[in-house]
Amino acid sequence: MSNFVLDRRLESDSTSIMVAGLCDVRLSKDARWPWLILVPRRADVTEIFELTPLDQVLLTFEIDLVSAALKKVTGATKINIGALGNIVRQLHVHVIARSEGDANWPGPVWGFGRAEPYRDAARNELIAKLREALSL
Amino acid sequence: MSNFVLDRRLESDSTSIMVAGLCDVRLSKDARWPWLILVPRRADVTEIFELTPLDQVLLTFEIDLVSAALKKVTGATKINIGALGNIVRQLHVHVIARSEGDANWPGPVWGFGRAEPYRDAARNELIAKLREALSL
Repeated sequence: MSNFVLDRRLESDSTSIMVAGLCDVRLSKDARWPWLILVPRRADVTEIFELTPLDQVLLTFEIDLVSAALKKVTGATKINIGALGNIVRQLHVHVIARSEGDANWPGPVWGFGRAEPYRDAARNELIAKLREALSL
Repeated sequence: MSNFVLDRRLESDSTSIMVAGLCDVRLSKDARWPWLILVPRRADVTEIFELTPLDQVLLTFEIDLVSAALKKVTGATKINIGALGNIVRQLHVHVIARSEGDANWPGPVWGFGRAEPYRDAARNELIAKLREALSL
């Protein structure tokens, strides 16, 4: 069995804020939406159905934890969850806080426009709030 | 507790092909992509994290079953899974078979262009194959 190595594009486009039982929980560097990315720390997995049943349950509960925290911290209208992987094949799950009137609302975030960077203070404040909500 | 009633837009845009333990499994009427929609038969639920933990696990296993069947039947390059709900708030999960060069590849399917209807024969053949793959 080969070891888990994070995909280079995921590494450059997001920052780890927590490591859970299964996943590396990462914040997207795109400030347009509060956007977390869960990367199961398993090598050579592209599809959710390739995970073991136990890992699928762990992933489900980590998505649940992250979604609820993101909703609590942002007060979002709707949480969007997606596992696409058409470009980056390493399995990763997007959990995004959407609010009415945000960029491309009510359409999807993927492939829309250009990423906008966070200001350091805003990113650090969001990460602190998320870590607190995730630690409950 | 109120009873589950299928959202009107989901009803008009898709056709039920199977009822699983938790979800109504529906085929989208848009022929551009082989596209299934899982609707948990629970009233007044918008977010996955509002389901009970047991229902979340059921949903996970039904997504797994449907994803593997869709991959087997279509030979797709990548399965796309999404729970958005920005327009239709009743909880529903998209499971879509994507292939290189399909409409809007490698972008997402949501909000792209106009739906194209199935020919009856093509739809019936796909439904028959999916039901067979789902019944294993």
